[in-house]
Order: sequence, then C-alpha cells, then structure tokens
Amino acid sequence: MPERRGKYTISLSGRPTVLGYASVVGKKEGEGPLGDLFDQVFTDTRLGEKTWEKAESRLQKEALSRALNKAGFSPSQVDVLFTGDLLNQNIASTFGVRDSQIPLLNQFGACSTMAQTLAMASVFVDSGAADIAAAVTSSHFCTAERQFRFPLEYGGQRPATAQWTATASGAVLVGLGGGKVHIADVCIGCIVDLGITDTNNMGAAMAPAAADTLAKFFADTDTHPEDYDFIATGDLGAEGSALFKTLMARDGERLGEEYLDCGLLIYDRERQDVHAGGSGCGCSASVLCSLILGNMESGKWRDGLFIATGAMMSPTSSQQGESIPGIAHLIHLKCE
Amino acid sequence: MPERRGKYTISLSGRPTVLGYASVVGKKEGEGPLGDLFDQVFTDTRLGEKTWEKAESRLQKEALSRALNKAGFSPSQVDVLFTGDLLNQNIASTFGVRDSQIPLLNQFGACSTMAQTLAMASVFVDSGAADIAAAVTSSHFCTAERQFRFPLEYGGQRPATAQWTATASGAVLVGLGGGKVHIADVCIGCIVDLGITDTNNMGAAMAPAAADTLAKFFADTDTHPEDYDFIATGDLGAEGSALFKTLMARDGERLGEEYLDCGLLIYDRERQDVHAGGSGCGCSASVLCSLILGNMESGKWRDGLFIATGAMMSPTSSQQGESIPGIAHLIHLKCE
Repeated sequence: MPERRGKYTISLSGRPTVLGYASVVGKKEGEGPLGDLFDQVFTDTRLGEKTWEKAESRLQKEALSRALNKAGFSPSQVDVLFTGDLLNQNIASTFGVRDSQIPLLNQFGACSTMAQTLAMASVFVDSGAADIAAAVTSSHFCTAERQFRFPLEYGGQRPATAQWTATASGAVLVGLGGGKVHIADVCIGCIVDLGITDTNNMGAAMAPAAADTLAKFFADTDTHPEDYDFIATGDLGAEGSALFKTLMARDGERLGEEYLDCGLLIYDRERQDVHAGGSGCGCSASVLCSLILGNMESGKWRDGLFIATGAMMSPTSSQQGESIPGIAHLIHLKCE
Repeated sequence: MPERRGKYTISLSGRPTVLGYASVVGKKEGEGPLGDLFDQVFTDTRLGEKTWEKAESRLQKEALSRALNKAGFSPSQVDVLFTGDLLNQNIASTFGVRDSQIPLLNQFGACSTMAQTLAMASVFVDSGAADIAAAVTSSHFCTAERQFRFPLEYGGQRPATAQWTATASGAVLVGLGGGKVHIADVCIGCIVDLGITDTNNMGAAMAPAAADTLAKFFADTDTHPEDYDFIATGDLGAEGSALFKTLMARDGERLGEEYLDCGLLIYDRERQDVHAGGSGCGCSASVLCSLILGNMESGKWRDGLFIATGAMMSPTSSQQGESIPGIAHLIHLKCE
C-alpha cells in the first residue's frame, strides 16, 4: 500500500512491478547511440500517416501495443491508462489510444510526463485501484517544432543551448508480481521557477526543479548519490545537466559516474547536430524503456532513480512575459 | 483502501471526505440562477490582471485559497494538488498554483477535468498516498474563445447548438474524516467517439461518453437512476442532455427529475444569451462547489452522481479532419 515517507515521498510497499515495456523512435533516434536498444525505428517521420500529429499518435499506439504484446496482455486486461504528450489538448495521446477502449486519464507534466504517468500507474496498482495500469508518453520533433517554435520550412537557426525534441514514445505496463523491476517510491515535484525566460534554454529552467525534487527525496529517505547505481534526469541536456550537478554539489551531494541524462544519452552530440541534447516527453520515455529498464533486467543496475523534468510553459505564457516554471517527478526503481 | 468493484468502478472504502470547497466566477455566471451560491463573483473579466490567461490563473488561485481557508488548512499541509484547465499546456493551472509550493500533477480531461482531478485526489487520499489532496479546475470564456474559436473582436455568430464557456473555477480539498460528504466510488471513463465533427456541437460529441460511463457504473454497482437523489452531468447543455437521456432510455434506464446538467444550471438560457448552455472545466467545477456540495451539506441530497464530460479535441485535430473523442468520468458522492 502507498505510505507517506517523509514530507514528499510516497513509498509503495506492495511492490508494483514493470510487467512489460517498449520504445519506438524515429530515424534520427535510431541512428543515435541507443539505436539498437529500441523496439522499433521508423525511418519515415510520418509513419505512413497524413500529418505529423497523426504520426505521433501512431507512435503511442505502437509503443503501447508492443508493451502489451511483450508482457502477454490484451488491452481489455488493463484497468487504467495514463498518457501524455506536449501537444495542445494532448491530442497525440487521445487519438493514439482512442481505439484501445481502456479507461483513460491524460496527464500533463511537459517533458516530465513519463515520470508522472508511471507514478500514477504505480500508485494505482499499489493501492488496489487498478490491477494492471499502463503509462505511455510521446513527442515528435516536427509537431513540437511547429507548435512551440517555427514552421519547419522556416529553417530558423538554433542557439547552442537549444535541445532537439525526440521523435519517440515509451510505454510501461505495471502490475503486481511477475517482473524483475519494481517501483519502490515516487516523489511528486513542486514547481520551481527561478525566473528563466529564454525558451531556447529549457535545461536551465528545469535544472533547479530536478535538484529540488532530488534533494527532497534524499532528505525523505536519508540516502545519497552513492546509494544508487544510476541517477538519470529526463532531458536537462548539456546546459541543464551541468547546472543540476552544480546545484546538487552546493547542497552537499556530489554526483559522480552514476549520473546520467536521457537527453545526453539519446543522441551523439558530436555527430548528430542536436546542440544541447534531446528533449520531449518521448526522450526520457524511450531511454527509460530501452537502456534503463534493459540494464535493470540484465542485472547491470539494481537500484536507481529516474527523474523526468518538465518546462511548464506555452508560447502564450512566454509571449505574455511569464518565466518558465520547471517541475521534476522522481521514480525509484529497484530490482528484486 | 481503493478496491475494484466490477470491471470499471473503483470503490473507496476508507471514505475520503470533502474537507472544504469553494467556487469563484465571472460576472455573467454571477448574474445566473446560482449567483448567490458562489463564494465570489468577479465583475472584471480580467480580475485586475493584464491578460485573460493571467485572469484565469487568478481564478484558480482564488478558488484554492478560499477552499483552504474555509477548511482551515494551509497550502503546506496539502500533499498533492491535481489541477487542470482547457488552455494549451495547462497554463491557467500551472501559473495559478505556481506559488503554492504543493506537489503538482496537472490533468487533462477537457471539460471532464473536475471529475478527473477529484477522482485522483480521492484515490490518493483513500490509498494513503496523500493525507490531504486538492482538486482545482478552471475555464474562462475569453481565453477559450480566442484559443479554440475566433478572436473576441471578430464577433462570430454562434449556432444554436454552441455552448458558452463559463468563467469560473472550483476547488475541493479531500482528506480522511471531518466532513459530511464523502467520495464513495469513482468510475474512470473510456473514449467514446461516434464520429461527430461539428465543433459547435460538443454536447452531441460528449453525450455518448456520459451514457457509456453511467451504464458501466450502473452495471458494476447494480444500481439504477432511482437509487440517487441527483445525477448531474458536467456540461452537455440542451442538445447533449436530450441525447444523453435518449441514449440512457434505450439502455433501459429512464432518467427523471433527479437528472441535472451543470451546463443548464449555471445560466438562465431565456435571459442570458448562451444558446445551448454552459461549458468548460470551470462550469461543472463551480456548480459542484456551490449547488451540489451545498445541497449535500444542507441535507437536501444524500446520495448522487457527478459525471463531468469532456470533448478531447484541439483546433489542430479538427482541422486535420478528426472527429471529436468524448470522455466522461463519474464521482459517486454520499453523505454520512
């Protein structure tokens, strides 16, 4: 059953388990360092659909159906589905899972949504509100670019701090027993807004939120970086990761080789013109559902933290002079 | 603890309770039939803010702080906050509650979001994942109009089936014990999409989802309309309500005087030029947090169903030829 542990952490004593997971990505992600680990690489950015938005929906549909197949479940066995994406009114999720006929709760945590959906699925399963729950998120470079920035045809120049929205989706199926990796704790983040207004530097806007959530989790659990095999932030990129490490060090927590960032793992920054690294709900989702859960299942890692980070702005809020509120949710993953 | 009851319903045996609630609305809503029941009526559509979006954020901030005050709690006592609105990337919520420093999980269920946030808060409290949780949603006529339809200045003519987005917000604080009204069950809805593409007839798009969720809840609990003092849909309006009653009757469930619709309650359709009635996350939220919870606390009603309904489209999905997916989540409220 879920139990409060300290002020911010929810401990899941019933050991909700990862029953299955899958990741699907686009061409650029397939050509990156993790290319071989994804379940499928789509070389056509439209996945045969008429629009990029429909293609992003298709990514979610594929990720969910692969996760279900790998775990040997049908959609009708899933009690509740938590989905999310970056598009206005979450249309990638809604249309992606429309046909599944699973009770649906769309979540919005910007790029932190994979941790948010997985936290919800884990709490629901641990509490008995669901026997089987699923978490799915996605992002697509072309849908994000034209919604948040410029039409693709414009070819705007990107500053060095900008990140590249990953074309990717990840899905996790959670239930009791059966799997090796379980969700031990979740820590829901608060908004941290230090006044960053540069929408081409999301890493800087999100890093303080990641540091805030991790510090709260360390305080609640009386643990430190060296207690974990990995600590992976969602998509802080080069700029945000460096800031995050500095903030944690100020707090007396020195992050070493166990520290990773999904935005830095998904692309080869030397070879693949992505500036500060990857971003988008699909970035951390696809890295979680390939490298991270893979390394846990193989026994390479036994105990780690997945901290997805989000920048909760919209073009409207930025145009109205608002700064960028950051948020980060943490999932503590453990092997039995 | 939450328990599965039938295929779709989650029964909350720990009796999570409404500790406090509040509603704040705009001028037009204040002039409607429920005007005297709201905690505050703002006559300035901008609430003294520079933009309508900031005004909508302010509505959420006011509703939350009034609900907290009425229950005698401070924000630091709330373990988790579930918020939602209709704006792109949920900015009304994010900026509205940014300063509260409560762990935040933004939800998106279009106009069904009040039921979704209240369901999440109730499950979290019942399970022990939170001691105190809050649910807040909002909508604003001017932000919705210019985001989903036309610039306000355009003065586009509205067809008779169109609904008027309410300028309103409602907040509910949930905890264990202390209050009279408890959340007995929740039923999470599936997407129902019968192919409606007319974005000026959301009632028709949402009615089948409301009927689907209510039928599932009746089947899971072996109850019927006559078992409840009220059955209130979110905002089907005149068109959707009539369709909903027809669909339920076909299913053998005849709705009588216990049936209400928040979209029909909030305005006087004869006197206030709102066509088919009210809509928006704030419509059902403010009616719940005034008339419905008020009638339960006063003892007029003891047992009822709140079914908020949402149309999960975006202008982009409609422009790309997609139909409108409907969804409805149900909350079973009971007095002790």
